[in-house]
Amino acid sequence: MHLVPADLRRRILDGELVCEAIGAIRDCEDVGAWAQRFKILADPTRLTLLLCIHRAGPISVTDLAVAAGLNDTTVSQALRLLRAGGTVTGCRDGRVVRYQLADERVSDLLEQVLGEPGTHGQPAERGHAAH
Amino acid sequence: MHLVPADLRRRILDGELVCEAIGAIRDCEDVGAWAQRFKILADPTRLTLLLCIHRAGPISVTDLAVAAGLNDTTVSQALRLLRAGGTVTGCRDGRVVRYQLADERVSDLLEQVLGEPGTHGQPAERGHAAH
Repeated sequence: MHLVPADLRRRILDGELVCEAIGAIRDCEDVGAWAQRFKILADPTRLTLLLCIHRAGPISVTDLAVAAGLNDTTVSQALRLLRAGGTVTGCRDGRVVRYQLADERVSDLLEQVLGEPGTHGQPAERGHAAH
Repeated sequence: MHLVPADLRRRILDGELVCEAIGAIRDCEDVGAWAQRFKILADPTRLTLLLCIHRAGPISVTDLAVAAGLNDTTVSQALRLLRAGGTVTGCRDGRVVRYQLADERVSDLLEQVLGEPGTHGQPAERGHAAH
């Protein structure tokens, strides 16, 4: 109960649970930043593109568009937003820009979506076929 | 290139990458369902409550409200939505309802938010340890 202000204690049903719950909030370094990450992943088109970039990046707009079955304009718009938010970075190679993920935590979330728990939290880039 | 329709092949810069990206889309069993999960987690209030429930559930509305520093009405409204969407379930115990997580994949995502990768993907209750 040490984490609960005195005036709220009489409302509590189970003080231990309240302290555990407060501990969880403290352990999450930045709830707002995580909510923002989830918001980025909450759109099916963006999620599809990020899955492609996670697995195949650095990859060009055209190749992404073919893989995802979208037109180049839709892909470019989504990438502009993802780039502005720091989720992906673009690397120019002559006339082509190739995109890759820039937020390791988003990569970890995408691994979970793809059922790749074996690679979770590991430093390596990808490369290591876990299966 | 075998995954790409013939008429699109001439647009492609790197056929291997396109196939890898298509593989990622196929490996994600249900992009829409995942996007919906991320949408639920994209709201800071809901995310805070789910972190509390993940760590301390089954837990009552009142204890959640005290832990999260929210009023009971806000918590009740959020829980109603989470319950309707199948993210949490409520268990009645006399006059008290206690809430716990009902979507194992949301639990896994919350573990990641809490920096608990050690428990991530382990066989434990879920059973299918692929590695």
